[in-house]
Amino acid sequence: MERRFEREIESLKTSLIKMASVVEDSVASAVQALLKEQKDLAEKVIAGDERVNELELENDNTIVDLLALQQPVASDLRFIIAAQKINNDLERIGDHAVNIAESAQTFAATHEQEPLLEIPKMCDIARGMLKDAIDSFINVDPILAKRVLERDDEIDDLNKKMIRAVIELIKSDMKSLEVGLELTRVSRNLERIGDLTTNIAEEVIFQVQARVVKHHAEDRSDVHKIH
Amino acid sequence: MERRFEREIESLKTSLIKMASVVEDSVASAVQALLKEQKDLAEKVIAGDERVNELELENDNTIVDLLALQQPVASDLRFIIAAQKINNDLERIGDHAVNIAESAQTFAATHEQEPLLEIPKMCDIARGMLKDAIDSFINVDPILAKRVLERDDEIDDLNKKMIRAVIELIKSDMKSLEVGLELTRVSRNLERIGDLTTNIAEEVIFQVQARVVKHHAEDRSDVHKIH
Repeated sequence: MERRFEREIESLKTSLIKMASVVEDSVASAVQALLKEQKDLAEKVIAGDERVNELELENDNTIVDLLALQQPVASDLRFIIAAQKINNDLERIGDHAVNIAESAQTFAATHEQEPLLEIPKMCDIARGMLKDAIDSFINVDPILAKRVLERDDEIDDLNKKMIRAVIELIKSDMKSLEVGLELTRVSRNLERIGDLTTNIAEEVIFQVQARVVKHHAEDRSDVHKIH
Repeated sequence: MERRFEREIESLKTSLIKMASVVEDSVASAVQALLKEQKDLAEKVIAGDERVNELELENDNTIVDLLALQQPVASDLRFIIAAQKINNDLERIGDHAVNIAESAQTFAATHEQEPLLEIPKMCDIARGMLKDAIDSFINVDPILAKRVLERDDEIDDLNKKMIRAVIELIKSDMKSLEVGLELTRVSRNLERIGDLTTNIAEEVIFQVQARVVKHHAEDRSDVHKIH
């Protein structure tokens, strides 16, 4: 029983790492499709989302089975709860990659080189945060996870800067109205990917330190220990 | 032990119902603040979000304790897993109410009666979906939960219609540029509230039927039974 349980925990971890790698690829491809106006690559990201949804369902069922049949305690339980949330966060990051891929298609269809303003910088930060959040999960590295949390403000500020820049862009040239609205959509999706990678980093820290660091911005001293 | 466990499950349910009621009020107040341009009410919604975050943390800790100390099985386990997800969904709905309240402040500051296009209709649907999703959870009513799922397409369509309407609005009057961007922000937040109430409804159905109905749009026949 004990051995089978350990095997199942390992297999859940492997499955999550695989899903993380699929989602990381989706975000990277969606961003490349957007920056390089590659319509085919955008199409691939959109088609690939079904696989992400399947993986989420598989993992969710594994998690329910593990909780129901094995009655885990202590650190195993913490891992399973973190896994459940990370599973959900990854699926949602996949959805945002799809949204960015859809915007990439819109941009590619206009046959013009668009001004992307802060988008390339936001892409870099979001991809870096996602990579580090996933690495911190794989290597159980709370220090790396904390560094992910610190970068979230940066992407939030760039999102606000984007809205102002888009307003200026449209004011200077009314023809960029549709493009401008699409740019704010991409910007928000990148900002949401930042939030979700922050969630993953928080789960890694929770798993390691048995503390809930959510809502860390409001009160970093008020962490809740698990009894 | 058995009795204490039942009491704790009941107390978790009560706490979630309380949180649901707080979040429902936040959405209703944010919407009213927006439609009636009531700045004070918007301020109240923003200030009230801290309470929602506290409730989420409390519930999360209760859930971890229940799983760790009581090792629940079968229907209790299903309830606890559903509770964990609903807890998270409610907190996120609270965040969207805050976003809408922020937009309400922007609108109130302009001292003009703005054209709200499809927003009032979207507000009605989102509030109705949220109320029904919460009622379906309280009364364990999967039929009501299914009706919530059916309404999600409606709000998605209105969100798309809004984007087109805003483009027309700005084209006809460049002065409505900032207002237009703010309207798309409100529209997207309402659409996200629709998605999250759909999640809650899915959890209610999962809890009752022990089936995963997520990603129902892709393949309704492919439901996963719990072993």
